[in-house]
Amino acid sequence: MDKPYVIGIDMGGTNTAFGVVDRRGEILFRGSISTFGYAKGEDYVNDLGNAINDLIENNGLKDLVKGIGMGVPNGNMNDGTIENAANIPWAKGVIVPLTDMMTEKTGLPCKLTNDANAAAFGEMAYGVAKGLKDFIVITLGTGVGSGIVSNGQLVVGHDGFAGELGHVRIIRENGRVCGCGRTGCLETYTSATGVTRTAREYLEMQPERESVLRNIQHRPITSKDVYDAAKNGDKLAIDVFNFTGKILGEAFSDFISFSSPKKIILFGGLANSGNFLLEPLKKALEENILFVYKGKTDVIISELNDAEAAILGASALAWE
Amino acid sequence: MDKPYVIGIDMGGTNTAFGVVDRRGEILFRGSISTFGYAKGEDYVNDLGNAINDLIENNGLKDLVKGIGMGVPNGNMNDGTIENAANIPWAKGVIVPLTDMMTEKTGLPCKLTNDANAAAFGEMAYGVAKGLKDFIVITLGTGVGSGIVSNGQLVVGHDGFAGELGHVRIIRENGRVCGCGRTGCLETYTSATGVTRTAREYLEMQPERESVLRNIQHRPITSKDVYDAAKNGDKLAIDVFNFTGKILGEAFSDFISFSSPKKIILFGGLANSGNFLLEPLKKALEENILFVYKGKTDVIISELNDAEAAILGASALAWE
Repeated sequence: MDKPYVIGIDMGGTNTAFGVVDRRGEILFRGSISTFGYAKGEDYVNDLGNAINDLIENNGLKDLVKGIGMGVPNGNMNDGTIENAANIPWAKGVIVPLTDMMTEKTGLPCKLTNDANAAAFGEMAYGVAKGLKDFIVITLGTGVGSGIVSNGQLVVGHDGFAGELGHVRIIRENGRVCGCGRTGCLETYTSATGVTRTAREYLEMQPERESVLRNIQHRPITSKDVYDAAKNGDKLAIDVFNFTGKILGEAFSDFISFSSPKKIILFGGLANSGNFLLEPLKKALEENILFVYKGKTDVIISELNDAEAAILGASALAWE
Repeated sequence: MDKPYVIGIDMGGTNTAFGVVDRRGEILFRGSISTFGYAKGEDYVNDLGNAINDLIENNGLKDLVKGIGMGVPNGNMNDGTIENAANIPWAKGVIVPLTDMMTEKTGLPCKLTNDANAAAFGEMAYGVAKGLKDFIVITLGTGVGSGIVSNGQLVVGHDGFAGELGHVRIIRENGRVCGCGRTGCLETYTSATGVTRTAREYLEMQPERESVLRNIQHRPITSKDVYDAAKNGDKLAIDVFNFTGKILGEAFSDFISFSSPKKIILFGGLANSGNFLLEPLKKALEENILFVYKGKTDVIISELNDAEAAILGASALAWE
C-alpha cells in the first residue's frame, strides 16, 4: 500500500521548519531547528535527521512515511545538492550533497529544490494548480522567484537551475541595479523591496504630491506601509502599485510567449496586495500580450496559507 | 518489429514537400503538391493523401511506414489542427483537423506542429541536439521562430502554441513595429527582414559612411546582400551584424533564465552568416547572462541541410 505521509522541510537562512503532511495537504506534526550555528553540513544534517527521526518515532509513523522533500536556497534539483548558498555558512562556497546525506541519516528517499520550485509543486499537489499541466508560480517576496511547470513537469534545465524569472531584464536602458550585479532585473521593480524603491523614488521625484508615506521618518518604508496607504486611498501609494503591476504585466506577456501557461499564480507577501496589484497587472498584460494568447491565461493569487506553504511545497516533492 | 520509415511533410504557403525518411535521417523518396489552389481543406488532404499513398505503394513500403509528421504554419500540436493560417486560403479563419483527416485518408497515425517546433524535433532525432534533453532551436528566417525542449519534451503550453520567442519584446520603448501589431519584438530586429531594416536605417542615419550597400538601387536590399558585403569587409554591413548579434545575445540571456538549455541552436538563412552573427551574439550573451548560468550554454549553428531540414524535422515527429 502506498504510504500516507511525507515530510516537508523548509530551509531558511535562519531556521529550518519541517512537518509531517498527508495527501490532502494537512500538516499533522511539526518541528524546527536552527539553520545557523553549524560549521559543517554534516553537523546540520545530523541534528536535522535526528529531529525528523524523533518526530516519526514519537508519533508512531514508522513505515508510514513515503519520503522527504526539501525547499532549499540554491538547491539543485537535478543533483540533490545545495550549491554556494552565500547566506548559509556551512554551504558557502561549497557543494553539499544534501539529499544523499539526509537519506543516509533517515533511511528515507529525499528530494530537494529551491523555494520557488517547491511553491510550484505545492500548488500542483494541494493548491490552485491541482490538475494543471502548464502553469508558472511567481513568488513576490524580498526577491522575485519562479517555478515553471510545462506538460506536468517542472522546468529544471540542463543544470537544475532553470526558472530565474526574477532576473529577466525588464528594463534594458538605465534599469535599477540588481543584487545579481546587473541592471533592470524584474525583481528590482516587483519584489517587496522593489515596491519600496519605487515608493522612495516617487516621494523624492514628486515632492509636490501629498502622501501619508511622508510621515514615516525614523525607519525604512516597507511594502506593507505602501499597501496600507493604498488601502486608505493614498494616491501616490496606489500609483506605486500601478507601476509595479504594469511591469509585471509586461513581463508576463513575454513569459506567456515562452511556455503558454494556463495560469500564472502569484505567491508571497506582495501577492496579498490583491487588486491594487492585480488590476494594473491584468491591464498591462492584456495590452502587451501576443494575439494568439489573448484572454487564455489567468493570473491568480495562491490560496495556500503563507505560514504553511513552504513546508507544503517542499513536502509535495516527496509525492512525485 | 518497429517499422523502419516515417513520412515527413513540410507544408509551406505555396508548396507542400514530403519524403520517406529512415532512422538515420536519410530522405529516400520525395514528392510535392501545391498548397495553394484549394478552396477546402478536404480537397487539399485528398490530393496530399493520394500522393503519399502512391509514394508508399510505388516504392513497395506498405506496412513499413510507422507514421506521418507534419510541419504546418499555425499548427496546434495538442489538437492536430491548423488554426487561422492567414496565408493559406483553405485554412483562413477556420480550424482544420488536419491530422485526423490525414489518418482517415492514409490509415497512418499523424502528428503535426509548427515549423520551428518541427526543427527542434529534427535536431533531436538527426541533428546537433541528439541525446540532449534541454535545448532551444531559434529559426532566423523571414520571421523568428522557436522550438523549446525541456526535460526531453517539447514545450507546447496549455493551448499548443508555446514558444513564440520571436515575439518576446526586446525593445520596450520606441521599438520597431511588428507584423503582430505590437512593437519591439525580437523578430523585427533579428529576422532576415530585421537585418535589412537595420541596414536601411544605418544607411539613412549615417550618410557619411561608405558602404557597397549604397550601390543597390533598383531593388530592395536582402540579408544576403548584407552578408556578402560583410564578407568583403564592408564596415557598415559588419556593424549591422554586430547590432543583430547583440540583440540576440541579450534576448538569449533571458531565455536561459527561463529554461536553462544546454544548447541554443540557430537555424535558417541568417544562421549561415556564421561568425558575423555568432561573435557579437556570444559577446553580448556573456555580458548579459545571470552569473549562475555563465559559460554553461553553447550557442551553435544547425548542421542539418537547409533544403532537407523541414522534411526531416516534420518526419521526426512521427518517431515520437
